[in-house]
Amino acid sequence: MTERNLLLLPGDGIGPEAMGEVRKIIAYMNDEMGAGFVTDEGLVGGCAYDAHGAAISEEDMAKALAADAVLFGAVGGPKWDDVPYEVRPEAGLLRLRKDLELFANLRPAICYPALANASSLKPELVEGLDILIVRELTGGVYFGEPKTITDLGNGQKRAIDTQVYDTYEIERIASVAFELARTRKNAVCSMEKRNVMKSGVLWNQVVTATHKEKFSDVKLDHMLADAGGMQLVRAPKQFDVIVTDNLFGDMLSDVAAMLTGSLGMLPSASLGAPDAKTGKRKALYEPVHGSAPDIAGKGIANPIAMIASFAMCLRYSFNMVKEADTLEKAIANVLDKGIRTGDIMAEGCTKVGTAEMGDAILAEF
Amino acid sequence: MTERNLLLLPGDGIGPEAMGEVRKIIAYMNDEMGAGFVTDEGLVGGCAYDAHGAAISEEDMAKALAADAVLFGAVGGPKWDDVPYEVRPEAGLLRLRKDLELFANLRPAICYPALANASSLKPELVEGLDILIVRELTGGVYFGEPKTITDLGNGQKRAIDTQVYDTYEIERIASVAFELARTRKNAVCSMEKRNVMKSGVLWNQVVTATHKEKFSDVKLDHMLADAGGMQLVRAPKQFDVIVTDNLFGDMLSDVAAMLTGSLGMLPSASLGAPDAKTGKRKALYEPVHGSAPDIAGKGIANPIAMIASFAMCLRYSFNMVKEADTLEKAIANVLDKGIRTGDIMAEGCTKVGTAEMGDAILAEF
Ligand SMILES: CC(C)[C@H](C(=O)O)[C@@H](O)C(=O)O
Ligand SMILES: CC(C)[C@H](C(=O)O)[C@@H](O)C(=O)O
Repeated sequence: MTERNLLLLPGDGIGPEAMGEVRKIIAYMNDEMGAGFVTDEGLVGGCAYDAHGAAISEEDMAKALAADAVLFGAVGGPKWDDVPYEVRPEAGLLRLRKDLELFANLRPAICYPALANASSLKPELVEGLDILIVRELTGGVYFGEPKTITDLGNGQKRAIDTQVYDTYEIERIASVAFELARTRKNAVCSMEKRNVMKSGVLWNQVVTATHKEKFSDVKLDHMLADAGGMQLVRAPKQFDVIVTDNLFGDMLSDVAAMLTGSLGMLPSASLGAPDAKTGKRKALYEPVHGSAPDIAGKGIANPIAMIASFAMCLRYSFNMVKEADTLEKAIANVLDKGIRTGDIMAEGCTKVGTAEMGDAILAEF
Repeated sequence: MTERNLLLLPGDGIGPEAMGEVRKIIAYMNDEMGAGFVTDEGLVGGCAYDAHGAAISEEDMAKALAADAVLFGAVGGPKWDDVPYEVRPEAGLLRLRKDLELFANLRPAICYPALANASSLKPELVEGLDILIVRELTGGVYFGEPKTITDLGNGQKRAIDTQVYDTYEIERIASVAFELARTRKNAVCSMEKRNVMKSGVLWNQVVTATHKEKFSDVKLDHMLADAGGMQLVRAPKQFDVIVTDNLFGDMLSDVAAMLTGSLGMLPSASLGAPDAKTGKRKALYEPVHGSAPDIAGKGIANPIAMIASFAMCLRYSFNMVKEADTLEKAIANVLDKGIRTGDIMAEGCTKVGTAEMGDAILAEF
């Protein structure tokens, strides 16, 4: 039997509760389907800082590098607001992305039909919405050097961040976007600020060239990132796949996620390049929502985003397409039945806690 | 009689048409109110490139530096998509901002009651919306060096942009935001990405310190910029004044503008520091919409944003508060009467062109 190695990093806040529901699904798949998942656990974020003084330990980094896929919960909370910058909870996530070379962040923004009314947008603008944001994740201003604060004397300090992009970084993320577009509506919109940023100029050129060389069958548009933000709010259904850099992707994917009204439900996948020999990609799967410290530990958090992230894991890391489809369908079914955690509660629905939601999805699976 | 010196830079696309309606108001104020406006004209953007090979000539820059205020239309269009980066239409605007040291960009996002239904958000979320985005405009990634594209050989290029902020730059923009908040609902939300960017760390520290020292009567919150984008979409009315850096301000103000459903109506002001002797600020006033080349020259563009920008000019450059109020009221009245340009047309309203809209506002003034 194939062994499938998963590292679970539940993290802080509602991360552990949400991960608990994925554990149930994994156990079920092992027992009933012989899925052969072998799981290990580690610490990331504030809990890792408390235990080791670092946002992730070397030992857990080694486990992440060795695993077939990492399932990540959430990090951070007010408890760690004042820890030093280098060991802040987010540093654990950023190190995972960088050291695993997870350059391709896939963020689907879909609107579950049962939740169209939960959007702040008019329902007709979001009903049936299905966008995929492909965000570059290991470059740009997140990792460029210099990244410093210098004391200039006179009570003045100077902060510097550096946005750096090389041709190959843009080419590989653009290729991922074009490839995924081919499995969808075959349209990519690339967003940058070429009117202000040199990295935007290069981004635009490389995306255009990659398109011409290898993906000319895909429809390609370019939009300035600020205009892109506007268009997402005005008429999100005009988009299929959006490809953009690390920082714009951070902003635009959050806006897109909020538009759907399904924020607590949205998963993400962060993928590396296929290994030259085995074809395997390193990967990390993570809900888009954060650690929600205000509701942590109460058993009321919505586990759907975490479960949907596991569905992406089945799809992208293990090519278990049927199982992924079934799991996603199970989520939709449960929502259709009016079963809701507090964050998505609506009139006439049945309010449940984290574990009941997980059980309901498992029952449909 | 006081002379009030205005430089009009209509620019490209619908800029000249929109500016034409402001000219009518200026003439009226001179004739009927003895306002003493003295106007001069210049070229900026694509039309300046066509005439001089630069996005703004030295002569027009000198005029801008000498004027009490600059009224700016819009720049750019497909005609100039392929001109060299240094002389692209936007370069004229960026040079004006930088050389006039217009560090404070005020972008009100208000929802005209008559237009609440035009928003893509549910009307109850935007009715009565009145946010002011205070965007830093002369620093950050827009102007930081190095800003380069280098050929690395091997078919690889490297693009670099640099985000730089010094303490004093953050302090002065924060002070503007706090001062304006005092004239409004007394609340400021500062947005950055301190979890990823060193400039975000410094931004957060300096805003906090400025608040503590001089503005502790104002309510201050901090939000990560990505979460801020989400919250703008989810519940925009939670905000009063938002203060943020140049690039986040670009994105967030565009999202906020689109939320209102009043995009074609929104003005902006870009202000310098008060002169140590005269107390006068350099200033440029500009509609938030762009040059809209697709509808340029047809006499159908909406001049309201340009007229509302002139109202901001009356308020901030000439302290003509009563006249500014009256002009803004005139715009609201015309909308209440159901007079609409094509972009904001709705059932039961009367569709008019650019000149008729200008005339209708003047008639209410
Ligand atoms: C937690 C933070 C470092 C992270 C980011 O900025 O990338 C988050 O906002 C995200 O989008 O995954
Ligand atoms: C035209 C462009 C350079 C400009 C900017 O990015 O600042 C515009 O988007 C704006 O917001 O005024």
